[in-house]
Amino acid sequence: SHKVASNPEELTGALSTAQPGDTIIMANGEWKDADLLVEGTGTKDSMIVVMAEEAGKVILTGNSTLRVAGEYLVVSGLYFRDGHTLTSEVISFKKDKNTLANYCRITQCTIEDYSNPERHESDYWVGMYGKNNRFDHNALVGKGNKGVTMAVRLNNKESQDNHHLIDHNYFGPRPNLGSNGGETLRIGTSHYSLTSSNTKVVNNYFDRCNGEHEIISNKSGGNLFKGNTFYECVGTLTFRHGNDNIAESNAFYGNRMPNTGGIRVINKRQKVFNNYGYGLTGHWFRGALVVMNGVPNSPINRYHQVDGAEIFNNTFVDCDYVQLCAGSDEERSAVPINSVIRDNVFWNTEKQDVFTVYDDISGIEFTNNYISPTIKNIIDRGFSPIKGELKKDGNIYRLDGGKGAGLMADFEAVSKDKAGPSWYLKPGKKEAFDYGQEKVVKEGADLYDEIAHSKAGDILVLEPGDYLLTKVIELDHPISIVSSGGATIKFEKSNLFAIENGGSLKLKGITIDGAEAPDYAGNAVIRTSRYSMNKNYQLWIEDCEFKDLDVNHSFHVLDVYKNTFADSIMIKDSNFTDVSGSILALDKENEDRGIYNAEYVVLENSTFNNIGQPIMKLYRGGSDESTFGPILTIADCDFEKVGFGPKNDSNKAMVLHGVQKANIENTTFSDTKELNIFHTVGEPVTVIESVVIDDRSLLQISDNTATIHNLKEAK
Amino acid sequence: SHKVASNPEELTGALSTAQPGDTIIMANGEWKDADLLVEGTGTKDSMIVVMAEEAGKVILTGNSTLRVAGEYLVVSGLYFRDGHTLTSEVISFKKDKNTLANYCRITQCTIEDYSNPERHESDYWVGMYGKNNRFDHNALVGKGNKGVTMAVRLNNKESQDNHHLIDHNYFGPRPNLGSNGGETLRIGTSHYSLTSSNTKVVNNYFDRCNGEHEIISNKSGGNLFKGNTFYECVGTLTFRHGNDNIAESNAFYGNRMPNTGGIRVINKRQKVFNNYGYGLTGHWFRGALVVMNGVPNSPINRYHQVDGAEIFNNTFVDCDYVQLCAGSDEERSAVPINSVIRDNVFWNTEKQDVFTVYDDISGIEFTNNYISPTIKNIIDRGFSPIKGELKKDGNIYRLDGGKGAGLMADFEAVSKDKAGPSWYLKPGKKEAFDYGQEKVVKEGADLYDEIAHSKAGDILVLEPGDYLLTKVIELDHPISIVSSGGATIKFEKSNLFAIENGGSLKLKGITIDGAEAPDYAGNAVIRTSRYSMNKNYQLWIEDCEFKDLDVNHSFHVLDVYKNTFADSIMIKDSNFTDVSGSILALDKENEDRGIYNAEYVVLENSTFNNIGQPIMKLYRGGSDESTFGPILTIADCDFEKVGFGPKNDSNKAMVLHGVQKANIENTTFSDTKELNIFHTVGEPVTVIESVVIDDRSLLQISDNTATIHNLKEAK
Ligand SMILES: [Ca+2]
Ligand SMILES: [Ca+2]
Repeated sequence: SHKVASNPEELTGALSTAQPGDTIIMANGEWKDADLLVEGTGTKDSMIVVMAEEAGKVILTGNSTLRVAGEYLVVSGLYFRDGHTLTSEVISFKKDKNTLANYCRITQCTIEDYSNPERHESDYWVGMYGKNNRFDHNALVGKGNKGVTMAVRLNNKESQDNHHLIDHNYFGPRPNLGSNGGETLRIGTSHYSLTSSNTKVVNNYFDRCNGEHEIISNKSGGNLFKGNTFYECVGTLTFRHGNDNIAESNAFYGNRMPNTGGIRVINKRQKVFNNYGYGLTGHWFRGALVVMNGVPNSPINRYHQVDGAEIFNNTFVDCDYVQLCAGSDEERSAVPINSVIRDNVFWNTEKQDVFTVYDDISGIEFTNNYISPTIKNIIDRGFSPIKGELKKDGNIYRLDGGKGAGLMADFEAVSKDKAGPSWYLKPGKKEAFDYGQEKVVKEGADLYDEIAHSKAGDILVLEPGDYLLTKVIELDHPISIVSSGGATIKFEKSNLFAIENGGSLKLKGITIDGAEAPDYAGNAVIRTSRYSMNKNYQLWIEDCEFKDLDVNHSFHVLDVYKNTFADSIMIKDSNFTDVSGSILALDKENEDRGIYNAEYVVLENSTFNNIGQPIMKLYRGGSDESTFGPILTIADCDFEKVGFGPKNDSNKAMVLHGVQKANIENTTFSDTKELNIFHTVGEPVTVIESVVIDDRSLLQISDNTATIHNLKEAK
Repeated sequence: SHKVASNPEELTGALSTAQPGDTIIMANGEWKDADLLVEGTGTKDSMIVVMAEEAGKVILTGNSTLRVAGEYLVVSGLYFRDGHTLTSEVISFKKDKNTLANYCRITQCTIEDYSNPERHESDYWVGMYGKNNRFDHNALVGKGNKGVTMAVRLNNKESQDNHHLIDHNYFGPRPNLGSNGGETLRIGTSHYSLTSSNTKVVNNYFDRCNGEHEIISNKSGGNLFKGNTFYECVGTLTFRHGNDNIAESNAFYGNRMPNTGGIRVINKRQKVFNNYGYGLTGHWFRGALVVMNGVPNSPINRYHQVDGAEIFNNTFVDCDYVQLCAGSDEERSAVPINSVIRDNVFWNTEKQDVFTVYDDISGIEFTNNYISPTIKNIIDRGFSPIKGELKKDGNIYRLDGGKGAGLMADFEAVSKDKAGPSWYLKPGKKEAFDYGQEKVVKEGADLYDEIAHSKAGDILVLEPGDYLLTKVIELDHPISIVSSGGATIKFEKSNLFAIENGGSLKLKGITIDGAEAPDYAGNAVIRTSRYSMNKNYQLWIEDCEFKDLDVNHSFHVLDVYKNTFADSIMIKDSNFTDVSGSILALDKENEDRGIYNAEYVVLENSTFNNIGQPIMKLYRGGSDESTFGPILTIADCDFEKVGFGPKNDSNKAMVLHGVQKANIENTTFSDTKELNIFHTVGEPVTVIESVVIDDRSLLQISDNTATIHNLKEAK
């Protein structure tokens, strides 16, 4: 039969009498706070189908969720958006702990921007339980809060050795979480990792899945990853736990984007073959190909030794890092054994030291690999230089001629148009700023109102003159405020701008004067939301002047709050004078769980004069290794008189704690307190080049791993 | 003429053509986000009047504000509620810096619960500028965010020597802010404090104004405070800066409520006479009468020496503390001079040491004062014991007979019904819990829904059985959850309860089991809002059992967030077993500005077994002296095995930092890490009585001011 349901109660009613082969139609429209339970028993040949009246037009909003339990059920065409779950999962292949789904299928569904507003409150968008279920042709796009996007759970017998099929899904852009818990797909957990899952992950398209360094975290055995495409994904397909997994015929297009990676191998009998990497730039654990060291007699949640890995017929073009025995340290001392790396192709004309060997590689057999002549060899056998060029074959490069190396003839990874629901329009590229309308703001106009009425990407062009703000400007979309000179903004509240969730700010050619700010400690020209932001923001300051930020102590240029994250903060060609606080106070994630406040921070060609507290406090604490940043560049800057404010308890002029990459060059520090660089987790890279400082002793670095060239002492 | 305006534009229009003597009627109804500007020029005999159609029925909501500028204007009958200002003031006696109000009057208006949701974002509700203005018969009730409720500003010549009149206003309950910035009325600032204000504050009723320790912060000269009533106000009328001020005929009814105070004297030629104090319990700076020491050659913002104070004909009945030379320390070494304390009456039959003398009082002349025979004298002249009793005269006690001491015949302070707008119903007493409906919840019922549908003060009575919560319960009103036994609550999210703004929680007879909580670090049974709370909350736990809070590390009973404040947290007759985190993690105000997370904390007759991290982290940092708490009592408790969790980085079993009063009695600490008590600001009182501890060295106190009686070592 064929019934129509217009609300969750009608759906439950229809299901209660549904017979195998029945179809229940969910009426088009918004279903708000709908707690959908699709429970029933179909048969293999006569499944019970619950489908949208029109695919994509049944809109689940608010705190809606879907649970599927029983056998041979199909759910199709739902669109979750404008909300988030209050429970642990949006879509669950179970009713409760004891009532699971088997032989069920969810297809043609989309979950989009359905993130808990609380950035570090964790949930899954999809939790797979039971056995023999299929999740296909769905889209999961834009998860901004903690918790893997999709999890296959093995937490009881009924969910192990499950033979699920996950195919043709579109895993859309996932922004950088700046924390562990940003995986896009996880199969198993360390606890059950020696159990077989036997899940197939086939022909899925991973588009800019940048949550953390594990795009996929495999934590169980017997899984197949085949024909998937990873497009500009920051991170790797990681065989974190579990044995006997296969990565076959996957394509990793890094396109030279930072920190894009390939495959990371840990544990026993992993097979990695016929994969293609292009333009992968990630290093250390996020290389194009990473073979890890293990921990001897490792506990189940640490690193098991690589044993019996087979890595063959892969091709890596313009990929920067192949890491062998990665993570080698006192604890991770068990080198790979019984393994083979054969018939692979590595091509890179820009970079010579593509391979890094961190420990003894005698347990790996190398045969018939081909490398571009530019690449430095690491071992005297098993590698031959390629004569001539690679051959372009459609979207990929192959090694010419019958050498048996590189991609096999049958290589095919899914294309973007073959993945996801047929009805869903996938997101394209997005500019940060300046994609909206340009609008001239006359002197004396109410800038607060102008911005309140602006749209995302708009550009407000300020005519010369003074602008006094009596309210805090709250930005919930990207906006540019520019002037060709002579526009000065003053403000009466403790902040001029608040970057709220969804907001970003570009200032160009503006003078900011703090003289009218209230006489309290702790003002800031710009602050982030005091609430959690589940969207990352950008702050670009160019050709600006900041002055008189000293009506009271601790007056910052940018102050941020916990649970906020900047993709990039850029200060260029600007001058800062008389600031009683910090330029950038990025130190609010103080719980030492590897969380931090900004990924890329750039100060370029700018001057800083009389800054009371550290120019920058950039803090990442703890020992978690899941993330990439912060990444800092300071170039062509002048700092003068920094850190002498009476409330500068730190007594520092700059504090970098746990920064992963710091590059300080062509920069002068004159009359400053100490610059403090504290290396913690990961493999931090600090380069200091052509820097002038009053006294060498003012540069305090916690270890001797920094590269220092041409450091001059002024005194 | 007589015009009606229905929106701000019509009001502006009507005003633009208004003549002296005109009346403009504002139409009844809601005016949302109305930025009212009342600008015009009336004359002394023909003022321009802007009035509500019916007083109290023009409701200003959202982000509405009122500015008055010009001369001889009257605004009357407005009601601000359900919103807050985005600017620095709700009602301003100015248009902008250069356009002030003179001879203007605001009357019959109310601002109620119109607080910025951001607790520590500061604003004023009323800012008085210009000269000769009057603010009378208004009500200001319930300010919950930072910033004085009403400020008289002297920040330019046009606002000094202003002769304002502030009379017959109702200053309604202001909750404890737990920070500086909670004053109800401030006149001047330190910067202009040597300037005359000449403001009269007459016949106002201050009802439970408990924002901080200054009810009124006088910071200018020549002001008169006369005939005001202070009803159960926590704090004092403080002559903080400025000279030649008068406190006359005011009544302070403390009624034995904690920390209620009277008058604090600093600076030159202050007169304090004919005032009445009753049942004032505040000590140190918050005594019934406090005469401070000053700083020699004090900078303008520190403490000027008391010189020429006249304190006479005051009566203090059942008041606990009169403090002379208060604040005496190395910096504040200038004792009072040329001063007189005469003809006063001090009556207290319960407390002998009412007077505390901190330094040399030879600069004060004492004559003809009378004390109850029980009070210990501090000096051998100027004080006589009272024979017999005081005489009750209406609401006050007088000294019988013609001795010339105590209240004068003409003493009269305003009564509650004479203050405030005639139309406004003033708030009465309020219970914390249990004033709503009682409702029985059956086993298996959805507790989440039951609470979502409850009302403030309701009592949910749980039948015996198990209750599993799949969502976090968000409380935005007070609720009691009780059981006569056998009701167990488990939960699947990282929190069971979130106390949101306006919420409070009482648990009685309930078992809380953490076994189903997620396997992440940082769970908490109860947490506060992650956002700012501008309302204080209460948490009472009675006769409850908490167990299995150890699925992962740092699982707390209560975890709080910044910008949240508990009036009281009480744990009584309860047992806690296997908690991997803390019982109370009250340590989130880490910016050391004198802000903290809870005022009263009580643990009574309870046991705590196997607690991984400090039982309690109670933190107040910084040197600000504006507040009273935290105030802690631990009585009749047993602690066993505390602080041995692997992530207890503090290595402590308890951390009290900056707690103002700590009383620990009849309590056993067995197998624990260190108890750490750090005294910082104020005059902290720590009493440890009949406590058993493994080893004396485990009790770490930062100085030797604690009172320790009967401490036993178990080992
Ligand atoms: Ca991870
Ligand atoms: Ca104060």
